[in-house]
Amino acid sequence: MVFTEEDIFKLQKIYRINLINSCSGYKSANLLGSISKDGSTNVAVFSSVTHLGSKPPTLGFILRPTTVPRNTYQNILDTGVFTINHIHKNIIEDAHHTSAKYDADISEFDQTNLFEEYKGEFEAPFVKGCPIQMAMSFVEEVYIASNDVKMIVGRIKELYIDDQLLQDDGFIDLSKGEVMSIIGLDGYALPKLEERFGYQRPK
Amino acid sequence: MVFTEEDIFKLQKIYRINLINSCSGYKSANLLGSISKDGSTNVAVFSSVTHLGSKPPTLGFILRPTTVPRNTYQNILDTGVFTINHIHKNIIEDAHHTSAKYDADISEFDQTNLFEEYKGEFEAPFVKGCPIQMAMSFVEEVYIASNDVKMIVGRIKELYIDDQLLQDDGFIDLSKGEVMSIIGLDGYALPKLEERFGYQRPK
Repeated sequence: MVFTEEDIFKLQKIYRINLINSCSGYKSANLLGSISKDGSTNVAVFSSVTHLGSKPPTLGFILRPTTVPRNTYQNILDTGVFTINHIHKNIIEDAHHTSAKYDADISEFDQTNLFEEYKGEFEAPFVKGCPIQMAMSFVEEVYIASNDVKMIVGRIKELYIDDQLLQDDGFIDLSKGEVMSIIGLDGYALPKLEERFGYQRPK
Repeated sequence: MVFTEEDIFKLQKIYRINLINSCSGYKSANLLGSISKDGSTNVAVFSSVTHLGSKPPTLGFILRPTTVPRNTYQNILDTGVFTINHIHKNIIEDAHHTSAKYDADISEFDQTNLFEEYKGEFEAPFVKGCPIQMAMSFVEEVYIASNDVKMIVGRIKELYIDDQLLQDDGFIDLSKGEVMSIIGLDGYALPKLEERFGYQRPK
């Protein structure tokens, strides 16, 4: 099967967004937790969290103009903080339901069986029970003009990892925590680690 | 286990890059094919290809100053084109070996059992046998100052999909093609699609 760029433009919208959202490969499956100035909490699924660098430890995610979780964005701008929590097998249905367009004053924590957790002085809510949880601080937003999207960059302030996932050299075996991966807009896949190949040198 | 930002700065380098590269969740596993002005081909593994938008259909990937595949970058600037090919189970070892630092005049296609494929007039090489192959044209590069990295944005010109992966609504079941996902710098995981939940509305 082949689609040219012209074919893609002509596709019916739902077909097109399913196709182009799933053609890039597997995506990370995260819940972003945030809190408004007034103290309303928010949690929303994101599938674009990407590693940017390890010193300083920064991650980015894509915010589309039409995406649901604009509450997340406003909260991050207002408070400067958010959390990233990995979606694991037991919570996929509730995690995906956070993509529904709730008003800003309704917390997705109240509409699902996801539970808030607070750590120390950190203002934004974590999602209880996730095998990896990160306290993030907002660094910058970068505008990507060609598609009218923004990359939001955050720095890791605290990284919590379920002990059994962490290997001796710092590698995190996500599959031991039943961390999920996303295909397209609504597909949840469970990966299994097959192999590590180490650092490669020319033959 | 918890790491603060300060802890992360103090970690030994290899431990730190393993940790921070694997903490963001599962990553896409792609081979980028390119060709120099002189006709030397290049193929290199990337784990940061991200969906940016579907109309126009654009994808981005992160280029770090210290990353190996600088040949890929120069080729893209010189020719304006590249290919994205999904890494599947049968080629993971060769795919990962493309991360070795070969000189620009040595083609990774000659150093591995990966084979070049050309389609129509498109200048850059595809990787033969991959269940998804995309012909891409360079759109823009966006500088992310906070970590001195670039996002390279490309537009999909042609999208080739193994028929059996494509569902009636445009969703691509990557797991039917044994497409892999990457953890950290060198872990290859095989995901299995568990469930699709569809579009969500408030309860």
